[in-house]
Amino acid sequence: MMSDPRETVLVTWPDWVHDTVAFGTRYETVEDRMRLAIEMARQNVVRGTGGPFGAAIFERSTGALLSVGVNSVVRLNNSTLHAEMVAIMMAQRRLGSYTLAGSASASYELVSSCDPCAMCLGAVLWSGVRRMVCGADRDDATALSFEEGPVFPESYVYLQERGVAIARGILRQEAAGVLDLYRRQGGQIYNA
Amino acid sequence: MMSDPRETVLVTWPDWVHDTVAFGTRYETVEDRMRLAIEMARQNVVRGTGGPFGAAIFERSTGALLSVGVNSVVRLNNSTLHAEMVAIMMAQRRLGSYTLAGSASASYELVSSCDPCAMCLGAVLWSGVRRMVCGADRDDATALSFEEGPVFPESYVYLQERGVAIARGILRQEAAGVLDLYRRQGGQIYNA
Repeated sequence: MMSDPRETVLVTWPDWVHDTVAFGTRYETVEDRMRLAIEMARQNVVRGTGGPFGAAIFERSTGALLSVGVNSVVRLNNSTLHAEMVAIMMAQRRLGSYTLAGSASASYELVSSCDPCAMCLGAVLWSGVRRMVCGADRDDATALSFEEGPVFPESYVYLQERGVAIARGILRQEAAGVLDLYRRQGGQIYNA
Repeated sequence: MMSDPRETVLVTWPDWVHDTVAFGTRYETVEDRMRLAIEMARQNVVRGTGGPFGAAIFERSTGALLSVGVNSVVRLNNSTLHAEMVAIMMAQRRLGSYTLAGSASASYELVSSCDPCAMCLGAVLWSGVRRMVCGADRDDATALSFEEGPVFPESYVYLQERGVAIARGILRQEAAGVLDLYRRQGGQIYNA
């Protein structure tokens, strides 16, 4: 069978990412980094390009921005393209490597506007990032009828035991605000 | 910032998939379906295109083949591209839909040569497939130093409670044989 376009999956950012995100900019504090992840989520809602979830990947020590992601399930007709997945895929594309484990001089962290679902939590582990930072929590997402899937307290412990530091609840109210915005706009709850 | 090729992630099959897989062929029994998933895993090893994992998605009642996937982490430098993920992404691309929930007349199932990792288990839930069928198990993969991540007995229960039927251990020995083949060839254990 010949290759055809239906046999190639393209993962792209919405156009506004190219216009608004300054890669290489340094985000010093964890709150600065979270504000960017939340802004990605907010822009995704405001511009109508997807669900209310954003993520970004930074070099840990310098805060240099490597990659961002926004929920792209509906835009790209692909249930796997949560914000964290897009951020990881794009970061690895930029580095030309299947791991973000980095080196002694450069390691990476993923910042997500919301606690990740089961898929994304697994993806974070395989991605090689050394820290995961989350904003809104499971209850905030569930209030909007977005499900987290089979994530349990021991899921977090599992990652921590394998060297992934975890910080949750960073700017939680601001992050949850984007979920509220999406609800007020009557946004779609795909795969509910 | 202008778009550049580093900002597009392309997910493709290895070339041999186009030459060897007959989409639309019907696989009547669950064993027939599993044999195809195992063959995908085996070909991925024999042809040197990736890790020893394969998957396929079928229309449940007719057994019509919709999609396949092979582990593509190293080939495409992307830690998210496990066999199940590739199969789901390609199936949704083919249908032009972010869900494989189908309809009364057409629902789908995912067949994987090995119990899925935490990421893929979450992805199966969001994909909309109505059944998941697995071959080799966690112990078979762990013997090869491939990790499953934070999957717990209640993870399976979670999916079942949401309407995803699960059948495991189908042709387990044949499936585990591909893992042995990979080990004998000295295959790479990425992200171990």
